[in-house]
Amino acid sequence: MKEQPLAGVTVLDFGQVYNGPYCGFLLAQGGARVIKVESLIGETLRARGTASTASFPFGLLNSNKESFTLNIKSPEGQTLLKRLVKEVDVVLENFAPGTMDKYGIGNEGLRQENPALIYASSTGYGSSVGPYRDYLGMDITLQAMTGVMSITGEDGGPPLKTAAAFADFIAGTHLYAGIVSALYARTVSGEGAVVDISMQDCVFPTLATALGSAYGAGKQTPRAGNRHPGKALAPYNVYTASDGHVAIICIREGHWRKMCKAMDRPDLAERPEFATFADRCEHMDELDAEINQWTSQHTREEIFSTAQQHGVISAPVKDLMEVLDDPHLAARGTLVKRPHETFGEVVQMHTPLRYKGIDPPALTPPPELGGATDQVLTELLGLSSDEIDELRSKEAI
Amino acid sequence: MKEQPLAGVTVLDFGQVYNGPYCGFLLAQGGARVIKVESLIGETLRARGTASTASFPFGLLNSNKESFTLNIKSPEGQTLLKRLVKEVDVVLENFAPGTMDKYGIGNEGLRQENPALIYASSTGYGSSVGPYRDYLGMDITLQAMTGVMSITGEDGGPPLKTAAAFADFIAGTHLYAGIVSALYARTVSGEGAVVDISMQDCVFPTLATALGSAYGAGKQTPRAGNRHPGKALAPYNVYTASDGHVAIICIREGHWRKMCKAMDRPDLAERPEFATFADRCEHMDELDAEINQWTSQHTREEIFSTAQQHGVISAPVKDLMEVLDDPHLAARGTLVKRPHETFGEVVQMHTPLRYKGIDPPALTPPPELGGATDQVLTELLGLSSDEIDELRSKEAI
Repeated sequence: MKEQPLAGVTVLDFGQVYNGPYCGFLLAQGGARVIKVESLIGETLRARGTASTASFPFGLLNSNKESFTLNIKSPEGQTLLKRLVKEVDVVLENFAPGTMDKYGIGNEGLRQENPALIYASSTGYGSSVGPYRDYLGMDITLQAMTGVMSITGEDGGPPLKTAAAFADFIAGTHLYAGIVSALYARTVSGEGAVVDISMQDCVFPTLATALGSAYGAGKQTPRAGNRHPGKALAPYNVYTASDGHVAIICIREGHWRKMCKAMDRPDLAERPEFATFADRCEHMDELDAEINQWTSQHTREEIFSTAQQHGVISAPVKDLMEVLDDPHLAARGTLVKRPHETFGEVVQMHTPLRYKGIDPPALTPPPELGGATDQVLTELLGLSSDEIDELRSKEAI
Repeated sequence: MKEQPLAGVTVLDFGQVYNGPYCGFLLAQGGARVIKVESLIGETLRARGTASTASFPFGLLNSNKESFTLNIKSPEGQTLLKRLVKEVDVVLENFAPGTMDKYGIGNEGLRQENPALIYASSTGYGSSVGPYRDYLGMDITLQAMTGVMSITGEDGGPPLKTAAAFADFIAGTHLYAGIVSALYARTVSGEGAVVDISMQDCVFPTLATALGSAYGAGKQTPRAGNRHPGKALAPYNVYTASDGHVAIICIREGHWRKMCKAMDRPDLAERPEFATFADRCEHMDELDAEINQWTSQHTREEIFSTAQQHGVISAPVKDLMEVLDDPHLAARGTLVKRPHETFGEVVQMHTPLRYKGIDPPALTPPPELGGATDQVLTELLGLSSDEIDELRSKEAI
């Protein structure tokens, strides 16, 4: 690949917080021109204030975008949007269900102006049909609704969320996937599309192992901490190292034999109670105790390195500060540092979508609110400065 | 959209377990012809046995695919693959790093045969550069390495994984995203591409909130259970209902006022210690106690419905059995039931990528191992039955 894959594509990104903005981030890093459309006070995450902790994720997700202010509640703003969509390829949004339709600028209103437009939205429960269609959703409530919390945590403890906002981000990734699929289809048909992503749909597949275990048991199995959801694989756990914790998993019989070599414990490979997966699962506590005995005498890095050398799948449990300085993320160019107005220095990231032969675009800081409004109106619609002034005086932009 | 977006695209899917197969699933449900290429004993998840609990995820992820057996370790198998790639658009794989290269059929070997080929791989740490490049990774070890475990769990408790295999699935979604981006780019350039996805890269963005909190505090904050990672929003927690738990989150000041109305507690909206986000975070225990007092008197469904009617973002904590019967997933056609050889009946899913005007293809059961081998060789390469027999006698297919 010699050019960014989405060069030449223009996007109006109405994204809020994580889901939509992450999609816009992937599009921008993929070479599209991404115009971030914000209310006159800025999108939710920006509005939480530049000195707040929300400014970090805002900067993370809004590099390589231009900022355009638009008051979608004003009739002039709505008219302006209808003109703008004739000049762009994609509109994406993750507002509360029905927000854009309320102002006549949902998929029907906008695709009337430009039948080649791809209109893409992501909501908690999708925007087409069903009893929850109009309901609000955010990462934590989707983790609740999809059963993820019910399987996370310890036996006897409460249901727990993961503090990684994965429901938001996996939906934003699907939103990007739907948009690019529609762009590809348009090269054949010439027609636009309406992409409808439901966070609930996107999270469901991640239950695969736990659902298999539940079907096998005929009922939901108890929460299993860091073990396999159905306690059907062992070793499979987080073990204690001399300086923290490590995760180790054996998914083939061969991994167990390699694990015994890594621990320098040939005797364990011969023990009949550890002979097969079924045997090891039956003697899981005893097995985990043997492994803990080894891991507790070594550092996380020693265990990680020894295990990988022996072909055993393992990793240290890193904390966030270690992740920010991870040598591999640095080597891949995933993380780079930029100055921050309050925190001194923060990381920014490049896209996970990588193609041999071309690097992702250099990262820019997040755009100033409305910094590209005039330029966009001049370039895309040929408006004069008087016309722009009038729109501004009417609080349309 | 009147036709599936990827109609006419042909894929060789070497996917194993979740990451690659989910990508192949999205491609197949998007209308591509997906030929699942398996070793002579079947891919890892199939090989765990049809009566095992692994057969559920195998069925979930391998609908709408054809199965083709190929021994990539045999010289005849390698030669055959080099002929096959001239007839297809995409090869995807998530083997251990370097597996395909070892046999001369990695991206360089195959793209020599077909420069328009898109070769896409996903590994724990990406296949291009960096100190972890050759290391094995699976969902649980990536949750460890990326810091996700370090922020999940309760204050004072151990680091915990989420039992949702989201590292695998978010990587598989990015793998699809990279492939379709490359297909789009190819319509302009005519050239193929090498797509390189690292699970570590894909998980990193999900840390956004927790990293913001860590930057704000100048260090990693303690694990926060179901609360906001930096305890910077309230209400934001999982509360006790009369029949389980519910998640509730207020992200705007207006949500809190609506929450007070939903609880019929106008007095709380007037309480100075709950006046602003900062106030409520300072009095988080007291606030959560007030909310628990209300939620504990109602069922999850009553709370969910009342909250949503008042514009408050909430959801019941559902268990897996409830998720399988979720009325909204049924209404969207996301889940459908099929007979299972051991479990009686299981669900299968349609793709989360939905387009107005066209439904995803009807689901098929997972294919029999090698069920399409002869047909593929006849259709794509025009081989005679004698030639096919010879390949079979050499254990190449």
